[in-house]
Amino acid sequence: MTEHTDKHYELQLRNLKETILKMGGLIEEMITCSVKVLTERNSRLHEELTIKEKEVNSLEMEIDEKCLEMLALRQPAASDLRFICIGLKISKDLERIGDLAVNISQQAMELNKEPQLKPYIDLPLMATKSQKMVKEALDSFVHRDAQRAKSICEMDDEVDDLNEKIFDELVSFMQKSSDAVSRGTRLIACSKHLERVADHATNIAEQVIFMVQGQDIRHGR
Amino acid sequence: MTEHTDKHYELQLRNLKETILKMGGLIEEMITCSVKVLTERNSRLHEELTIKEKEVNSLEMEIDEKCLEMLALRQPAASDLRFICIGLKISKDLERIGDLAVNISQQAMELNKEPQLKPYIDLPLMATKSQKMVKEALDSFVHRDAQRAKSICEMDDEVDDLNEKIFDELVSFMQKSSDAVSRGTRLIACSKHLERVADHATNIAEQVIFMVQGQDIRHGR
Repeated sequence: MTEHTDKHYELQLRNLKETILKMGGLIEEMITCSVKVLTERNSRLHEELTIKEKEVNSLEMEIDEKCLEMLALRQPAASDLRFICIGLKISKDLERIGDLAVNISQQAMELNKEPQLKPYIDLPLMATKSQKMVKEALDSFVHRDAQRAKSICEMDDEVDDLNEKIFDELVSFMQKSSDAVSRGTRLIACSKHLERVADHATNIAEQVIFMVQGQDIRHGR
Repeated sequence: MTEHTDKHYELQLRNLKETILKMGGLIEEMITCSVKVLTERNSRLHEELTIKEKEVNSLEMEIDEKCLEMLALRQPAASDLRFICIGLKISKDLERIGDLAVNISQQAMELNKEPQLKPYIDLPLMATKSQKMVKEALDSFVHRDAQRAKSICEMDDEVDDLNEKIFDELVSFMQKSSDAVSRGTRLIACSKHLERVADHATNIAEQVIFMVQGQDIRHGR
């Protein structure tokens, strides 16, 4: 590789990282926005979310194209090869998180048509935790930091516990009053969506550990 | 490339396809099995499912390793490069479908502890449709058949409609009787899981169209 192409390659790699972080920033905003539709009962924010979703979708395809281009025109070294392949895999995780934010907002819009069933305490907490997990997962990816990635897998348990707590609470609410059924079912869906956000962050973190340590920790291997 | 390495490369590619189809066959069996836990109220089948899940998890990692190896040691031609990159992406879709089958079975095991809420008609129908979508998606992948892939995207709408129908029906059941709340919530979760199975099949199909036609139809581009 000449010095010239070497420099170009470095630029492409940096550009790929920046695009992934840009997509990450956008989906963080989308989670914040979707939770506001719910907690602040502000349905007008939903439109903002659908605009961001389109941008996120374009970024997914842009990332895949960049990865394919780098794989086609270069012969990346082992560690960069893994980096690029994981880039290809996590673009989908990020896009799915964007979809989940839209799903939360859609449920929230229906919920906002009726009086609030109960104060929302655990749901915003779950949102903050899952959002932090996404941010940390992407930071650990671009910095190739396995230690940071490991702490994310631990946070996932906290989110799972919150999801179960919310589920039990809402089922008992619905059993007491038939008025609560429709709203309760929608809130359970919101909680489940947030739990899936955390799952995607964990997916990313597991891949990062594989990338850095060459050790595949998925499925307790 | 010498004739010898050429032959080896063809073998590797065929081996990758076979591994993907093997994983696909396994997850089809997992869906069948999970739906039997529900419809035949046969909780003993759950154990079989957890054994298959472990095998599916190993296959995911095996596929990723094969793809990485081919990308590292070869410089695949453009169409093969896309094939391998999509292999990397869909191994995750398949693994998630396996997880969803386990999730359905877990809900079904809880449901089997109580009397059956209502006859299951639409849920098995959804299962058959989603299962067919997965099979078709993988066949279209290994045969690089965009036409077949396109028909899968159309089937997804039918599954979405069934999911909505089941949701509405169960909410009205739960509103009528507080006894139905816990079982209704679990059945809604099963239906949602099957809808996600169909989504993953659609993901795979969209990638196949991209692979064959170089045309990215994700996000209506």
